[in-house]
Amino acid sequence: MPKISVKGNSMPESPIRKLVPFAEAAIKKGRKIYQLNIGQPDIKTPSVALDAVRNHTIEVLSYSHSAGFEGYRNKLADYYRKHDIPVSGEEIIISTGGSEALLFAMGSIADAGDEIIIPEPFYANYNGFATASGIKIIPVESKIETNFALPPIADFEKLITPNTKAILICNPGNPTGYLYTKEEIDQLADMAIKHDIFLVADEVYREFAYDGAKHHSVMSIEKLKNHAIMIDSVSKRYSMCGARIGCIASKNKEVIATAMKFAQARLSPPTFEQIASEAALDTPQSYFDEVIEEYTLRRNILIAGLESIDGVKVATPKGAFYCIAELPVKNADDFAKWLLEEYQLDNETIMVAPAAGFYSTPNTGLNQVRIAYVLKRENLERAIVILKDALTVYNN
Amino acid sequence: MPKISVKGNSMPESPIRKLVPFAEAAIKKGRKIYQLNIGQPDIKTPSVALDAVRNHTIEVLSYSHSAGFEGYRNKLADYYRKHDIPVSGEEIIISTGGSEALLFAMGSIADAGDEIIIPEPFYANYNGFATASGIKIIPVESKIETNFALPPIADFEKLITPNTKAILICNPGNPTGYLYTKEEIDQLADMAIKHDIFLVADEVYREFAYDGAKHHSVMSIEKLKNHAIMIDSVSKRYSMCGARIGCIASKNKEVIATAMKFAQARLSPPTFEQIASEAALDTPQSYFDEVIEEYTLRRNILIAGLESIDGVKVATPKGAFYCIAELPVKNADDFAKWLLEEYQLDNETIMVAPAAGFYSTPNTGLNQVRIAYVLKRENLERAIVILKDALTVYNN
Repeated sequence: MPKISVKGNSMPESPIRKLVPFAEAAIKKGRKIYQLNIGQPDIKTPSVALDAVRNHTIEVLSYSHSAGFEGYRNKLADYYRKHDIPVSGEEIIISTGGSEALLFAMGSIADAGDEIIIPEPFYANYNGFATASGIKIIPVESKIETNFALPPIADFEKLITPNTKAILICNPGNPTGYLYTKEEIDQLADMAIKHDIFLVADEVYREFAYDGAKHHSVMSIEKLKNHAIMIDSVSKRYSMCGARIGCIASKNKEVIATAMKFAQARLSPPTFEQIASEAALDTPQSYFDEVIEEYTLRRNILIAGLESIDGVKVATPKGAFYCIAELPVKNADDFAKWLLEEYQLDNETIMVAPAAGFYSTPNTGLNQVRIAYVLKRENLERAIVILKDALTVYNN
Repeated sequence: MPKISVKGNSMPESPIRKLVPFAEAAIKKGRKIYQLNIGQPDIKTPSVALDAVRNHTIEVLSYSHSAGFEGYRNKLADYYRKHDIPVSGEEIIISTGGSEALLFAMGSIADAGDEIIIPEPFYANYNGFATASGIKIIPVESKIETNFALPPIADFEKLITPNTKAILICNPGNPTGYLYTKEEIDQLADMAIKHDIFLVADEVYREFAYDGAKHHSVMSIEKLKNHAIMIDSVSKRYSMCGARIGCIASKNKEVIATAMKFAQARLSPPTFEQIASEAALDTPQSYFDEVIEEYTLRRNILIAGLESIDGVKVATPKGAFYCIAELPVKNADDFAKWLLEEYQLDNETIMVAPAAGFYSTPNTGLNQVRIAYVLKRENLERAIVILKDALTVYNN
């Protein structure tokens, strides 16, 4: 039997998806599951995007430009300029999801054995992309006590070595919901310039900033133009996770030229989803206003609910649609499995993502879970009732 | 200025796309270009696929399963069984193009520094995927004199080292058009088993076999079940290059479980194109009959035309829709550029892919080009007239 690669064996299992077989078994038993584990919103995709696909007039579904439709890139650049991100269509490569944009970025700036520093907890699939690229993630701890604010710059600098190629942030954060302040972004920018390393920002949750807070892009900082790389995606913005359309953008011409070589190798991003994504740029502001209002209400219900449970500690998110909660259990992984395998309340249960998979440091976040507030308010309320009851049952 | 990675700098430029800027400049000058450089068919996509997308009823464009729609995988397995490929839906992972399937395969079976042996000339983007994966391609020469038939097994065995993880073939071949015989596939299978390495077959041109020849899949060989990995794509079969839907299939459970970890990291393949691809499985046989007849006629026109030009040598393809031609020029790269920059016949010219980029051995195939016969017959005839004239002008 020929051998699997070391890399393949090292690929981490997704903490968001690893409980799926248990959930499938529970569903077979007739259980209703409230899925708090995955950032799959129930919000409707803008009709302007869905209609554009419905009205397509394609006869030959041919390759598009490797960087994506030129028209889409230019229109996307208009969208960015409205968000104080001065970028042109030539500084953007459309990718197959933010996932591929991350792979292009990692491949363009780091070699096997190189290091990228990331505040943890972080989006778990960064581990997968780093493993696939042979890159080492160096975590710097952010804490639930500060709502996962930026760790002190000194903590980053202690970790910088000649192998450090970049700092990677997710802003607003998945899984933390933390939105970096202008001061924090400026501190990161100064550090990137000082050490001449890249600052890569995953800004896919840009629109999801609550309580009137403003999002600050790394691309808005003039002096950072050679050091900043932005990762983006339409998945969350337009509730279009299935589109798998994202982009990588940078004003650093070498970065874009290099990423373009990766893009050319895989020929082009998918056509129909580009049509949908381009049309989605015409989504009226009212859509976002309603969505943000809805998410704010959901967040408020979830956080208040979690805070009402004895022994639960939660970091209040200012953006995205996740929070990290510390539960009164020893091992959240065991608890999450138990919820699916053994527990039920009136034949219902909940599914959460154990947070340990969002940490790179071993044995960290063991009693934490990530909860996505992407469900209807009444379902979130019900999920809180279930969690409260489940914790009581589990701990007795 | 932070540095680009060594890997990024090593990423090869696509030989199919590197002349694009010259072509764009020629088009600006008002030139009409016959594009023989890229395998983008002008054949219509089956209406059943395009209509399925037009009739979609999606309200929330959500993530699909990381392995692709279960329904699609099962229906795809039915299609394979009709082609003597006994595979089930669980042995298939839907990928974003054959490109991603190749990345999953390489990542699952080889580490940085490991080697994969490939008969050359080979599909140029294998170089890109290998570079991105840190894998070394070891070429074994196939020759125009034998129409690029399988090199002797002894030639492969001379190259096998402890770092050799797989043999990769493209069957029928891009860029050679060679279709491996049953005996050749059996020889490869025996070698893979003997040395306990994988045999990866890119079979995206399966349907395109001419003169009544039969395609033989590595997946049809019972004893090879732990060693065979199949790469596939809908791009050429249904003239759906823009869909970016492919798959990796294997009866080796470890391979599929490992590839699945790569698939989970990028969440899912695009939804609309999966809808199109699933519907495309209902394409009537008459569509393929017509397409194959059309490609056969095109091939006959192209090969007869090329053979009629003094000093041109061409390998007759038995499959796919490419051929490699040796031209009476010293450097086909210079000639291809000259065709776009300087030459014109009644304000028309042709674009070809210099073949050197399809070889891994330096300074090989310098006087060869790859020609795709994906254009209408009258355009191919005109392209031959232009090539004949251009060679006369260039050589005087």
